[in-house]
Amino acid sequence: MPAQSTKLKLVADNAAQQTDPVAQYQRVRRLTNALTEPLSDADATVQSMEDASPAKWHLAHTSWFFETFLLRDHLPGYRAFDDDFAFLFNSYYEAEGARHARPQRGMITRPTLDQVRDYRAHVDTAMETVLASDDPAVRDLVTLGLNHEQQHQELLITDIKHMFAQNPCFPAMWENDGQTSIPAPLQWCEEQGGRVAIGHDAEQDGFAFDCEGPQHGQLLAPFAIASRPVTNGEWRAFIADGGYSDHRHWLSDGWAWVKENEIEAPLYWQHADKDWQHFTLTGLQPLDDDAPVTHISLYEADAFASWAAGQWEGARLPTEGEWEYAMRDQDRNAGQQLDAAGPVHAIMPDSDTEMTAPFGSVWEWTGSAYRPYPRFRSAEGAVGEYNGKFMSGQFVLKGGSCATPRGHMRASYRNFFYPHQRWQFTGLRLARDI
Amino acid sequence: MPAQSTKLKLVADNAAQQTDPVAQYQRVRRLTNALTEPLSDADATVQSMEDASPAKWHLAHTSWFFETFLLRDHLPGYRAFDDDFAFLFNSYYEAEGARHARPQRGMITRPTLDQVRDYRAHVDTAMETVLASDDPAVRDLVTLGLNHEQQHQELLITDIKHMFAQNPCFPAMWENDGQTSIPAPLQWCEEQGGRVAIGHDAEQDGFAFDCEGPQHGQLLAPFAIASRPVTNGEWRAFIADGGYSDHRHWLSDGWAWVKENEIEAPLYWQHADKDWQHFTLTGLQPLDDDAPVTHISLYEADAFASWAAGQWEGARLPTEGEWEYAMRDQDRNAGQQLDAAGPVHAIMPDSDTEMTAPFGSVWEWTGSAYRPYPRFRSAEGAVGEYNGKFMSGQFVLKGGSCATPRGHMRASYRNFFYPHQRWQFTGLRLARDI
Amino acid sequence: MPAQSTKLKLVADNAAQQTDPVAQYQRVRRLTNALTEPLSDADATVQSMEDASPAKWHLAHTSWFFETFLLRDHLPGYRAFDDDFAFLFNSYYEAEGARHARPQRGMITRPTLDQVRDYRAHVDTAMETVLASDDPAVRDLVTLGLNHEQQHQELLITDIKHMFAQNPCFPAMWENDGQTSIPAPLQWCEEQGGRVAIGHDAEQDGFAFDCEGPQHGQLLAPFAIASRPVTNGEWRAFIADGGYSDHRHWLSDGWAWVKENEIEAPLYWQHADKDWQHFTLTGLQPLDDDAPVTHISLYEADAFASWAAGQWEGARLPTEGEWEYAMRDQDRNAGQQLDAAGPVHAIMPDSDTEMTAPFGSVWEWTGSAYRPYPRFRSAEGAVGEYNGKFMSGQFVLKGGSCATPRGHMRASYRNFFYPHQRWQFTGLRLARDI
Amino acid sequence: MPAQSTKLKLVADNAAQQTDPVAQYQRVRRLTNALTEPLSDADATVQSMEDASPAKWHLAHTSWFFETFLLRDHLPGYRAFDDDFAFLFNSYYEAEGARHARPQRGMITRPTLDQVRDYRAHVDTAMETVLASDDPAVRDLVTLGLNHEQQHQELLITDIKHMFAQNPCFPAMWENDGQTSIPAPLQWCEEQGGRVAIGHDAEQDGFAFDCEGPQHGQLLAPFAIASRPVTNGEWRAFIADGGYSDHRHWLSDGWAWVKENEIEAPLYWQHADKDWQHFTLTGLQPLDDDAPVTHISLYEADAFASWAAGQWEGARLPTEGEWEYAMRDQDRNAGQQLDAAGPVHAIMPDSDTEMTAPFGSVWEWTGSAYRPYPRFRSAEGAVGEYNGKFMSGQFVLKGGSCATPRGHMRASYRNFFYPHQRWQFTGLRLARDI
Repeated sequence: MPAQSTKLKLVADNAAQQTDPVAQYQRVRRLTNALTEPLSDADATVQSMEDASPAKWHLAHTSWFFETFLLRDHLPGYRAFDDDFAFLFNSYYEAEGARHARPQRGMITRPTLDQVRDYRAHVDTAMETVLASDDPAVRDLVTLGLNHEQQHQELLITDIKHMFAQNPCFPAMWENDGQTSIPAPLQWCEEQGGRVAIGHDAEQDGFAFDCEGPQHGQLLAPFAIASRPVTNGEWRAFIADGGYSDHRHWLSDGWAWVKENEIEAPLYWQHADKDWQHFTLTGLQPLDDDAPVTHISLYEADAFASWAAGQWEGARLPTEGEWEYAMRDQDRNAGQQLDAAGPVHAIMPDSDTEMTAPFGSVWEWTGSAYRPYPRFRSAEGAVGEYNGKFMSGQFVLKGGSCATPRGHMRASYRNFFYPHQRWQFTGLRLARDI
Repeated sequence: MPAQSTKLKLVADNAAQQTDPVAQYQRVRRLTNALTEPLSDADATVQSMEDASPAKWHLAHTSWFFETFLLRDHLPGYRAFDDDFAFLFNSYYEAEGARHARPQRGMITRPTLDQVRDYRAHVDTAMETVLASDDPAVRDLVTLGLNHEQQHQELLITDIKHMFAQNPCFPAMWENDGQTSIPAPLQWCEEQGGRVAIGHDAEQDGFAFDCEGPQHGQLLAPFAIASRPVTNGEWRAFIADGGYSDHRHWLSDGWAWVKENEIEAPLYWQHADKDWQHFTLTGLQPLDDDAPVTHISLYEADAFASWAAGQWEGARLPTEGEWEYAMRDQDRNAGQQLDAAGPVHAIMPDSDTEMTAPFGSVWEWTGSAYRPYPRFRSAEGAVGEYNGKFMSGQFVLKGGSCATPRGHMRASYRNFFYPHQRWQFTGLRLARDI
Repeated sequence: MPAQSTKLKLVADNAAQQTDPVAQYQRVRRLTNALTEPLSDADATVQSMEDASPAKWHLAHTSWFFETFLLRDHLPGYRAFDDDFAFLFNSYYEAEGARHARPQRGMITRPTLDQVRDYRAHVDTAMETVLASDDPAVRDLVTLGLNHEQQHQELLITDIKHMFAQNPCFPAMWENDGQTSIPAPLQWCEEQGGRVAIGHDAEQDGFAFDCEGPQHGQLLAPFAIASRPVTNGEWRAFIADGGYSDHRHWLSDGWAWVKENEIEAPLYWQHADKDWQHFTLTGLQPLDDDAPVTHISLYEADAFASWAAGQWEGARLPTEGEWEYAMRDQDRNAGQQLDAAGPVHAIMPDSDTEMTAPFGSVWEWTGSAYRPYPRFRSAEGAVGEYNGKFMSGQFVLKGGSCATPRGHMRASYRNFFYPHQRWQFTGLRLARDI
Repeated sequence: MPAQSTKLKLVADNAAQQTDPVAQYQRVRRLTNALTEPLSDADATVQSMEDASPAKWHLAHTSWFFETFLLRDHLPGYRAFDDDFAFLFNSYYEAEGARHARPQRGMITRPTLDQVRDYRAHVDTAMETVLASDDPAVRDLVTLGLNHEQQHQELLITDIKHMFAQNPCFPAMWENDGQTSIPAPLQWCEEQGGRVAIGHDAEQDGFAFDCEGPQHGQLLAPFAIASRPVTNGEWRAFIADGGYSDHRHWLSDGWAWVKENEIEAPLYWQHADKDWQHFTLTGLQPLDDDAPVTHISLYEADAFASWAAGQWEGARLPTEGEWEYAMRDQDRNAGQQLDAAGPVHAIMPDSDTEMTAPFGSVWEWTGSAYRPYPRFRSAEGAVGEYNGKFMSGQFVLKGGSCATPRGHMRASYRNFFYPHQRWQFTGLRLARDI
């Protein structure tokens, strides 16, 4: 999931996992609808910053994807719902022509939320015919469209959260469900590394985005990785120890970012009396000290690791390869992931294994820049636009979060954001040399 | 009506014109409601630029005024509708405490439009008791509050227009009513000037804002003033003659503004084939060549006058004193002014006299900086906050516009904006030395 | 003297005062040379902000003026010293063609200071023939060029001061000469006003810039004006009383300027232990409490007057007309003005009359916007470019300063700057209604 | 060599190569002096952009390094030349205390160039004693100081070039020496890759900066690398083919950069009639079509490679590991590198081997982000400040340039800049998958 918006990614294979395309399509589309159900027309329209998009835009853009790449291209005689929508709801596909400027998305009060919902229904009806197709190209595009929509489900949640956070009254989107963390002691899990296979294996596995491959070998030195993400309680200690005011822990760009923006805590943390609270989708809440820290930038993650090296020698961020290798046997469908519309906030879940929360809860920053794997090639045309074009200046995150739809995740998944961005559910898990 | 928002201005006297305070109060408040009737929740929430405010904010802020200065201060036992609203809907009264940052007004999706309408109804009900008061201080504050609300009615219209103009689909707020201009030939009306009285006479006239006085003498040299405002047709000629690309016509600051913003026509003019159209509250429309040009900055008005001096020697903007003196006998309630909710666009109205559209249609830029009249003093406290504080960098406009509520205008009225601003219905009327 | 650089102004008449054009020319040109004598090549090249110009640029630009309007236009066969110089050293005369961008002036390390000095000498030699001319047009242009150069002498001083102030080592340009102020008690001088003549009388007086006329009548109500400018000591009291943190004293734009720039004292004031020092052309120095406060913006001047109204009811800035009328009989050549190169810092001079420092010491902000006098017209062509074009957004200052060359000043003189600018020797003198 | 200025890097060992420390010290220091010999005081003072520093600053900063880490710490009784200099000429060592703001470096007209030269001489004299020391820590610091100064020699040249390029008269620093390129046909050199050793081997090799190690294994797939860098002639073809206007070739950030800055050619290329010229240290010159293209950003390099893939399938930037491995047997001291003060401009040199210009001529962008090698640790204290802290957002460049002092380069060298920066002598060499 991208800074610029969910980047469209290529289907690597037409996996057999789609046992029932219609059911799968409906499940995904209905979850999107459910997530926006509590929103007013205004909630769905306002854009809180250039990085974020209005909920209405997400609703329409994901439908535009199906309308354009499936209905227009594969349903003879299909008529566009509204000719203006291609301009309004294309995200960044240059090949698809002119589009509305991203920072102006919040100016579009018309079409209304209800009209956009009609648009979704219109597309869903027209898709019924397409979903019956046996054409592998069509099925691949449907799979791609659904994975694309799942990415936007997560962005929907984080963009709405950011927008509500601008309101000094701190509105709540859902009632608190009382879920809390299971305290998990920190342990170091050792790996001997060596020559390991990294990336998605197009021959065997199911769907993946193009940037997850080709699978290739990497050399890993022995390392240890923490059994759970860093917690809010540990982050309090970092703050209390002057972590945000000691330049020695920070990347140079990070230090400049701290100074310029007067950063002193994760995003959404608020001073409350002598303690901290944080803004969530259920309003302002006390901090859960056992929960994974979230809404931190790569700069903060890196500074924390540097500070933590005072306690655990050589503590650092894992590389992408280390993370993927260490989690190779973990259940990608376990953990705290998005199953239904409702209060989304990161907790430390219970775990059956030594490893806690490898998938779900919070995205984990790695120390790896987001760059192409060896022999990676972008595909041709608009659908192939692009993962490649976002491969500068960003870092990779792994493992998904509490806002990632269950089923969307895998070890080879490469999420990426700029090092200062932190409105996603971003956290970290430490690694060390051994 | 101010750049920063409608500035609160002092009641100069408790004029007897309020024959029926309740009827008057209801008339004003209902017009505000009617103006926002066509708006969706999203339309009423989005803020299109820092200079503008969301419609919802105007609805709430004008009510906050009555709640604060009348209900809180003069209705024993009154309980605020919502304790957060004072923070959200105070505009710029420093004495009234902290307030929500102006550029963030568009983030407030909650309260909803319906909740703000409830707030208005709640205030209106509570005001019934207050409106029965005979206390002159109370009656003065009510008059002030209603004049304040009328200013916001005009801002409501211009702010909505600006917001809709950001939408590439150009939504219409109302149906076009087909009103068109009556062509009016340009004539020069001569005045001998001499020592004249300028400003509002607190002893005799009705309500006025504090900055309109004290009345004082000015010396005017003989001058002529045009019988009507400059038209769209004349402005086309200015453009066709290279008016926007000849530095000689422009103030130095204006030329920099033209270059930086690539200005080539009034705000809302759009290229359409080989002609111009302009965006209005009824959507994109052909230009009415006989209508007064509008949505121009002081810089453009001044450059036009300089260019027009090639045709009429010594053409220039009138001073505020000249304008006020020349219009002293005109009917301030005549002309195209706001009577009801409906399509608002400037036309050249018919005229019974030699002078066309002295009041209404478009605000007319003068060449006078907005500075205090001799012996002007700001009043004490929040209500006296302020006209004085806006008296730097702005120019005076006279005469009201098609969006000014009828009854709100008079010759001494001093509207003011920065010289680059043009989202109000701003135009110009030429003057010359004789 | 202008924000954008010294604006070229029209000769109003070819006054007979130039008894010896050659001597007068040499006197002015040599003073310019002497003022820059202490500068290194680097000192003369660096530009400290967009508002300021490098000393080398002033040296060359004033010569370019003579080269262009006298030598090129009135000396047959004259060859330009260097063809690049017209591009590099034109200031803002659009009619004279393309020119080097103002903010890039500090990039011009070549030509060197020595080469620019050669340029001056070259122009001076060529001017000998022109100075012998009896052609009134030529004599008027020479007078204009010398007045233009005098304006740049003052800018040279203030621009160098600003540049040195950026150096944390606070270099001194000259040795301190030990001059200190003569304490002067504040008295109020009353004027009855009435109909008075304001502006330069082209029929009788000597040289003036075009914007100083036409002479015209103004009506002045009775007023009092202070016998001396506000002092550093009084400014300390303003600061101590919280003047910079009480919004009630400030224009709205001024308050925003204070907040954004964290203003807490006049420009060049520095905290030193528990006291203040200020940077001068002789380095950091203790404050002279009896000296006129200087390096203040219009915003600060206006806020001080508002604060002072607590002590003197109705205290305010004088209007331009009041100031000019009150000083009509004062000796414009008396007071602390620039006679020779050497330490320039404002003091309160001794006075023979009731009025102290009406001319010299510090420029005095008025409450008048810089706008044209009635029937003012700009002249044709490049030399007539322009005073008119600077007539928006700026305020008038009167009376000259310690950096104004003696002989350059008169009561009708209209200096102008934007309300936030304060790198000139700007101060204020209070007025009141009576 | 860094964006933020030459970053201080740790000595990896006290290599025996320093056969005569005094001679080596003098050789490096004298070259710095010679490079700045043609500069005027002003040339040496002005700062042309935030990324660059004045020549005077480089002269002083490199001396401050020796004064601080050698003289202050290792020469008993040493007195600082000037106590202000530590503040003025520290670059970014937070541990060494407060320092002058980088963007303000161009304001420091005092000390003068001559005073800074005196400072250098003073330090050189005092260093004589230190250079005689046998203390390995001292010898390591001297080696570090000299490598640090060599980095600043290159920055000196590129910063001066950038400053002169701002002058519309395009001054020349040196006379053109007539050196031109030897045309070299493009060939593809194949490598089988496999498990290879990358990075500096601290046990065996000489001096290196800390970030060049630890040496470690990488897996390389088979690849081919071009026998020479991309040429100006090839770049013309890229431009002619619309390379700067076809979004498909560009990284998303790169495309935004092109649009915002209206980029249409490498830095310093100028339209000249219907052809291109480029600004060099010998002034404006015709393009040498056989010379390596230079002054390009990573974005441009990447876009070129994408475009070139139309001709050579799979063309792309090499990774850092590929580049280092492919050049492992090349002579690091051969090619066009800096030997003496004189005209510096990139040419295609003659070559004895299949590989042309592996070292020297132009820095070659790689596709690798600048991140730490496995088990890299920053050292303690100010000298260890830092390479680590610059490891976000930047890309690695390899091979040195025509402005890199001969002897300073090696295959493991890691230069790094942000992807938009291009005022260094930056070029590219293509690679391909095979």
